[in-house]
Amino acid sequence: MERQDKDLAFMLQYENVAWYENGSVRILDRRVYPTTVSFVICHHHDEVRQAIADMVTQSAGPYTAAAMGMALAAYECRSMKSEERKEYLRKASDCISHARVTTVKRMQLITEGCLPAAFAAIDAGEDASEAIVQHTVKANNTRYGKVRSMAEYLVDMIPDGGTVLTQCFGETIVGMMLDVTRQRGKSLKMVCAETRPYFQGARLTATVGRDMGFDVTVITDNMPAWYMEKEGIDLFTCAADAICLDGHVCNKVGTYQLAIVCKYMGIPMFVSGAPDRGHETVDTVTVEMRDPEFPLQAMGVRVAAEGVKGWYPSFDITPPSLISGIVTDRGIFSPYDLKRYFENGALGEFEMIL
Amino acid sequence: MERQDKDLAFMLQYENVAWYENGSVRILDRRVYPTTVSFVICHHHDEVRQAIADMVTQSAGPYTAAAMGMALAAYECRSMKSEERKEYLRKASDCISHARVTTVKRMQLITEGCLPAAFAAIDAGEDASEAIVQHTVKANNTRYGKVRSMAEYLVDMIPDGGTVLTQCFGETIVGMMLDVTRQRGKSLKMVCAETRPYFQGARLTATVGRDMGFDVTVITDNMPAWYMEKEGIDLFTCAADAICLDGHVCNKVGTYQLAIVCKYMGIPMFVSGAPDRGHETVDTVTVEMRDPEFPLQAMGVRVAAEGVKGWYPSFDITPPSLISGIVTDRGIFSPYDLKRYFENGALGEFEMIL
Repeated sequence: MERQDKDLAFMLQYENVAWYENGSVRILDRRVYPTTVSFVICHHHDEVRQAIADMVTQSAGPYTAAAMGMALAAYECRSMKSEERKEYLRKASDCISHARVTTVKRMQLITEGCLPAAFAAIDAGEDASEAIVQHTVKANNTRYGKVRSMAEYLVDMIPDGGTVLTQCFGETIVGMMLDVTRQRGKSLKMVCAETRPYFQGARLTATVGRDMGFDVTVITDNMPAWYMEKEGIDLFTCAADAICLDGHVCNKVGTYQLAIVCKYMGIPMFVSGAPDRGHETVDTVTVEMRDPEFPLQAMGVRVAAEGVKGWYPSFDITPPSLISGIVTDRGIFSPYDLKRYFENGALGEFEMIL
Repeated sequence: MERQDKDLAFMLQYENVAWYENGSVRILDRRVYPTTVSFVICHHHDEVRQAIADMVTQSAGPYTAAAMGMALAAYECRSMKSEERKEYLRKASDCISHARVTTVKRMQLITEGCLPAAFAAIDAGEDASEAIVQHTVKANNTRYGKVRSMAEYLVDMIPDGGTVLTQCFGETIVGMMLDVTRQRGKSLKMVCAETRPYFQGARLTATVGRDMGFDVTVITDNMPAWYMEKEGIDLFTCAADAICLDGHVCNKVGTYQLAIVCKYMGIPMFVSGAPDRGHETVDTVTVEMRDPEFPLQAMGVRVAAEGVKGWYPSFDITPPSLISGIVTDRGIFSPYDLKRYFENGALGEFEMIL
């Protein structure tokens, strides 16, 4: 199968992010990348679920990993009868999609989306794992095309030579933003907030920018306001783990704080992604709470004394009043006007790829 | 010499922070405390200056260290004639006080403040090092008394059972705030922003709170806004490296951002300390820029890829419009009304202790 944009460095190629082959799934360990390049090898789909829960891969990585987990599940049940296999895959879908509480709805779209291709292969006596892999490559390419459309609108908002603040790792949209900028002959500087406690900004976003030849500066999470004042930021942009139809955005913890600072500074804040039909309002979003001890260390080294408590919400929620626009493949929408996105039969970001 | 408040855990006792004895100065290495308790030993006053420049000790620590460096300088020149010794000490004062660009004026008050006691000892044929140590103990005790007065006013602002957000390590005022709270039979919870890149909040402030028996939670620097929304913060307080007479406050980078978030959330922000007569306006403040590579690591472990740039201002500047009050030993002042502090002959925080 041909792979769109396969020459782009930004992707960290999804074959590297998470890939099924010969009865195992190999997942790039983004917890230590880029100083260490290593992979977690899963031999059962529940290990894939666990790897996602343990944040071996993040941002868009879990969606490819989840699909690869389905391919692995299809391998596990290869000796069963057809109906048993289908039931096994339905259960695997349920298992994997519940890896992280905040993204269950999106994950279900991914894992359940693998079922028709798998079932067709089973009925035809073909390789169901391979069918799921092919389906995923196609779905990812569809998503890449869609994200490229978003990037075209996003880059319209960035002045030539401007400075863009990022938070966490927006993955595909970051790479596409840089690629579109390059193709248009424009330039930009990236400033990446490091994004504690996992440092995705310092480790992942900054590395993608560097690999694509851009000027990249990493700052700690307490520096953005002062950076804005002293050096200047033209635009803050991030992706989202959920864009509710009421305009609330759930994204990596820290997004809300940056949005507040942008508002104070008069700097526009754009969120890229399609609205989530699964969240009519913010009330259906559950912010995952992770191990409170984790932020008490950094890069594996204990920071705080024993007896001190931690607190670790994976995400926070930014209200529409702080958001300048939601950048979609169909243009930039006011966060108060997201239902209009679905006019003329448009689907949500993750619905569309199925 | 009797030492006031010597039973209080919060001080990390200045004898431990930095202490002169028998021709050397021993400085607690706060870069690794509390997970490691180790000391840097200096055998020349220029090594003390270097240790301050290298941030072996921070917050109020450098002021005691600088005075101890002066005691060491007096030891170094013990065989010289009187006038040569005085000249040697003047040069040592100039050397040590320039350790960090942002605090030269305060440092000069400390190191030059040691000279009269030293000169008197020299003239009387007594031990000049011991005279400087005695002077410093007395000066610190005076300062402790003054900071206790500040703490009384600060604690008036904290509701019983309330939650206080801190940033970096306010040292004496943090300990005094907790001690006064305890003495009044009130309770409070501490939330410490970890304060990258040195983690002073996670390592120092949190440890003092724990040692004094308070409920302490450490959060990463991107979490305060979300913490305020989900868990609630009643008050944000910090110390300052310079309080300008025009109401601008220079403090550890991150303070400005927290002040913006507090303003948005409607949470009061109080800065403790006396106004600096050395800074009529913010225009005379130089924000020290440190090694830009430093924030690219955490606890000694490299985070970002090679080829990515860093940025490292030690401090930032918060404008008076974001500050609810400056908490001094003479009451709480509007940041716009600081000159009134000096009515009736009051001196600034560091002038007063001399």
